[in-house]
Amino acid sequence: MSISDKIRENALKKLKSTEKNSDIGQLFRLLHAGDRGALSKAITLTESLLESDRQKATDLVQACLPHSGKSLRIGITGVPGVGKSTFIEALGIYLIGLGKRVAVLAIDPSSGVSHGSILGDKTRMEELVRSENAFIRPSPAGTTLGGVARKTRESIWLCEAAGYDVILVETVGVGQSETAVHGMTDFFLLLKLSGAGDELQGIKRGIVELADMIVINKADGDNMKAAQLAKAQFQKALHLFPPKESAFDVKVMLCSSVENKGIEEVWQIIEQYFKGAAESAYVEQKRAEQNRYWFNQQLEEFWLNKLYQQPGVAESIKTLRNAIAKGEITPNKAIEQLKSMLQ
Amino acid sequence: MSISDKIRENALKKLKSTEKNSDIGQLFRLLHAGDRGALSKAITLTESLLESDRQKATDLVQACLPHSGKSLRIGITGVPGVGKSTFIEALGIYLIGLGKRVAVLAIDPSSGVSHGSILGDKTRMEELVRSENAFIRPSPAGTTLGGVARKTRESIWLCEAAGYDVILVETVGVGQSETAVHGMTDFFLLLKLSGAGDELQGIKRGIVELADMIVINKADGDNMKAAQLAKAQFQKALHLFPPKESAFDVKVMLCSSVENKGIEEVWQIIEQYFKGAAESAYVEQKRAEQNRYWFNQQLEEFWLNKLYQQPGVAESIKTLRNAIAKGEITPNKAIEQLKSMLQ
Repeated sequence: MSISDKIRENALKKLKSTEKNSDIGQLFRLLHAGDRGALSKAITLTESLLESDRQKATDLVQACLPHSGKSLRIGITGVPGVGKSTFIEALGIYLIGLGKRVAVLAIDPSSGVSHGSILGDKTRMEELVRSENAFIRPSPAGTTLGGVARKTRESIWLCEAAGYDVILVETVGVGQSETAVHGMTDFFLLLKLSGAGDELQGIKRGIVELADMIVINKADGDNMKAAQLAKAQFQKALHLFPPKESAFDVKVMLCSSVENKGIEEVWQIIEQYFKGAAESAYVEQKRAEQNRYWFNQQLEEFWLNKLYQQPGVAESIKTLRNAIAKGEITPNKAIEQLKSMLQ
Repeated sequence: MSISDKIRENALKKLKSTEKNSDIGQLFRLLHAGDRGALSKAITLTESLLESDRQKATDLVQACLPHSGKSLRIGITGVPGVGKSTFIEALGIYLIGLGKRVAVLAIDPSSGVSHGSILGDKTRMEELVRSENAFIRPSPAGTTLGGVARKTRESIWLCEAAGYDVILVETVGVGQSETAVHGMTDFFLLLKLSGAGDELQGIKRGIVELADMIVINKADGDNMKAAQLAKAQFQKALHLFPPKESAFDVKVMLCSSVENKGIEEVWQIIEQYFKGAAESAYVEQKRAEQNRYWFNQQLEEFWLNKLYQQPGVAESIKTLRNAIAKGEITPNKAIEQLKSMLQ
């Protein structure tokens, strides 16, 4: 039996035993039946710092895996003030009107233990919160982006196993969190304001390059002319970039979340994207690549942590770093010293 | 005795023994006396793939370390065709005229075993090559940028111990090699052409952000007007960036290497930079940081290689990656499996 077969068999065995006996089995059944409380509890488990909870969470997510993968995963970013919450509420309500179930997740590594600002204040999505077909979850707490991202990636699978058709993953337009969200979604939507003059900033920071669609929000009232100008500027800027691997043409759209204009058009384009991507199996390939990438990242993180746990190594590294900074020893010589410790 | 003291003592002991007895001691003495043949031989030793040579090279570079650090390390980049060779020749000859000794190194990870294109054709620097006060060395061969960069970093110390006052490290404007050169030099000079229309490309790729100076080359004859326009555009674009940590104002200069115009002005600004940086101890800090960074990189590389050398691990990782790509197992579950192998 190959290792791959063994893994599959073990997972199936564990899944069956958990389904029958344990509290994880009960939690899985409720979650898979669409119970929002069970989904909440499951996500809390993935966010736990207790090792025993982490193991349970790993098993639970693994049990959900065969029932996941059927949603459209959409990343949404934009600087604070761009109107992300109102846009997500408008889009969410529109999708629920189409008969879909919508989950909203978030990544904000700065949120700390207080569960942060994004989506923390649920009153900003009043109507969506009240819908039975919506599930809204603020950013997991955490000090490292890697940890926060891991939890949200697992939450996506949990939401999918709970029957959500569209997963919106929100992030703030700062730091590396956008790259993380781009790396766990199928479609990446960049929200912009007209006349904010940050076209070049977005290009510089590499965010425009990640986007599958740019939506200029608050295109209403006195803003209309500026919004149209911004649209033209972005369309021009997009010519700088090579064609997307998805072969999808990046569109610049106008939208007014408060006047509820443009949402339908935005969704039609997104549906076109997923239709094309399904035909070319692009989303499938992208997800396989994303999973492999996450695995590599987690593997390196785990293994490097192990280095610092070797006896005496953490102390020696500190000493060697100081000697290097003072110009007493070359990095190569320092590595040689460490190698002899780690034989 | 602290580890740091021990390292220093061992290095000194080794240095004394090598100085007295071995061929490395003889090589060090010749190199330190400024012998170009010895310097060439020493660099060849750092580039060797033989483990015994590598150890000798590590000891030799360590022996050179106390005699190094006194040069001005200048990185020079620009896309092919921008006139790097003629610029470096003009600058090098100017510096030799000021009584300086100039070393020219290069990083080109694509050079392969043939020692590549950059500086490979020494006839492009005819006059500089003939000077006794110049030392020109093509890019080391290598398949990974990390390996190529390590060798060039060590060559910098060797050149300094051999008495070179200015080290010019050249790279092509492709891939990550510019970041590598920026990470081993004190001052980073970006060569540009007028009217090449790649201002935004440079900004997008993050190279303009690295530059301490932008020099628009071939500013002569019919090109003058376009060069002045390009200068104005770059000056405008530079306002997008926050001030440098060095507090040095990034200058855009015009230059004609073939007409030998602008070289003196370029050098005056570079001298100003080093004067200010010496007063604020900025270069010292930057070098300490660079050394620490290289050490971390090499340490991670060494340790990750060790992971793949654990019995059965490389094969298991391959199997798990496949299972992940097929959606059979979550990355977290895969890490759990590997952890149990690596207890």
